[in-house]
Amino acid sequence: MILCDIGNTTYHFLIKGKHKKYFLDEKVPPFDDEVYFVSVNEKASKKLIKKNPHAKNINKLLNFQTSYLGLGIDRALACSFQDNCVIVDAGSAITVDVMEEGNHKGGFILLGLRRFMKSYPKISKKLKFEFEKEINLDKIPLRTKDAIQYAMLKSIILPIKEVSLNKNIIFTGGDGLALSKYFENSTYKKDLIFENMKRIIDANNCIA
Amino acid sequence: MILCDIGNTTYHFLIKGKHKKYFLDEKVPPFDDEVYFVSVNEKASKKLIKKNPHAKNINKLLNFQTSYLGLGIDRALACSFQDNCVIVDAGSAITVDVMEEGNHKGGFILLGLRRFMKSYPKISKKLKFEFEKEINLDKIPLRTKDAIQYAMLKSIILPIKEVSLNKNIIFTGGDGLALSKYFENSTYKKDLIFENMKRIIDANNCIA
Repeated sequence: MILCDIGNTTYHFLIKGKHKKYFLDEKVPPFDDEVYFVSVNEKASKKLIKKNPHAKNINKLLNFQTSYLGLGIDRALACSFQDNCVIVDAGSAITVDVMEEGNHKGGFILLGLRRFMKSYPKISKKLKFEFEKEINLDKIPLRTKDAIQYAMLKSIILPIKEVSLNKNIIFTGGDGLALSKYFENSTYKKDLIFENMKRIIDANNCIA
Repeated sequence: MILCDIGNTTYHFLIKGKHKKYFLDEKVPPFDDEVYFVSVNEKASKKLIKKNPHAKNINKLLNFQTSYLGLGIDRALACSFQDNCVIVDAGSAITVDVMEEGNHKGGFILLGLRRFMKSYPKISKKLKFEFEKEINLDKIPLRTKDAIQYAMLKSIILPIKEVSLNKNIIFTGGDGLALSKYFENSTYKKDLIFENMKRIIDANNCIA
C-alpha cells in the first residue's frame, strides 16, 4: 500500500515505510502497488490519477465534523482521532488547529518558516539571512541578523503558545521537529497524516 | 525647510507640513527650499542629491548610543529623545525598539502588514484575502479568511506585547495608526521621525 499526501508544494509519498517527495511540477511515476491519497490540490490529484488510474482518493472516507468553513482535508485528517490538544502542521504554511473534548474549535494559518525567510529579503536586500536554530529568544536582539530570526520565531511561536495554554501540542510537517523544540508540552509525530490515513483505510476495509 | 525620510520603499517628504511620497523608482523633483534628509538607502540618497545638490544628509548629526550593530538611521532617529518606551515603526518592515531609562536595549524586525498579505497567496492561491481591520482576535477562527487575518495580526501583535509589558508603545509609520488600536498603552505619532529630525536640525543650527 502506497500513501500520498498532496499539499500546496509537494506530493508526499509513504512507500514501504519510506518517505519520498516530488514537487508538484515534477513527473510522478506509475506505481505497481495500490495508491491511496488525500489532496488539497485538484490539479495535482488529476496528474497522479493519470499515471495511476486506480489511485483512490480517501477524502470522502473521512467523516470529520466541524463548524469551520472550508477546512483543508489535510487539517481535518491531522485532527482526526484527537481529543484535547493543538495540532500544528508546519509546512509551506503552518496550520494550527484546536481540539477540545474531541471537537474541532477552529484554527489559524501562519506563514511557514521558508515563506518568512523568503519574504524578508523582498523588503530589502539587507534583510537577507541564513536561519540558525540556536537563537536566544529570551534576550532582545542586538544585531540585524538576530533581530529578524527572533521576530520570525516569535511571530510563529507566540500565537501557538497563546492558543495552547495547558494543552499538549502535536507537531507534524517538514518544520515540525524544529519548531516543537521551542515548546515544553509538545510531541513531534512525523507520520501523523499517514498514520491517520491508514486508520481510515483499515476501518473502511473492515466494513467492506 | 523640506524634510525627507528615505526608506526601503519610498521617499517620504514633509513639505510645508504636508506629506508627499514617491516610490524609489519614481522621479524626484528639484526643490526650491532647503532639503534635509535621512536615508537607509544610499542609491536613493544619491538620486535625491543629483536633483538637489544642496540637500543635507543629517545622518551624521545624530549621536545615538547603542550596542546594536547596524541599527538603521530611521530606527535610531525614532528612538531619539525617548526614555522608557517601545517604539514601533510600521512600514514595509515593522521595526520594534526598546528604550529603558534613555538606553536602547535592542529591537527586532517583523514583516510589514503588506508583506504578510503578499506572502500568503504565494503559498497557495486559496490563501489570498482582503484585509479587514474588524476581525475578532478573542475567538479562534472558523473560516479560512479569518484564519489568515487572525494569524497575521497575532504574528505582529504578540511579539510587540511580549516585549512591551507595562511600557508605553509609540507607533509611527504607514500602518502605525491601524496597529496602535490593538494596544491599550499606545500612542500614534505620525510625524515622529520628522519631529526628531527637526529637533536635531534646530539643535545643530543653534550651535553653528
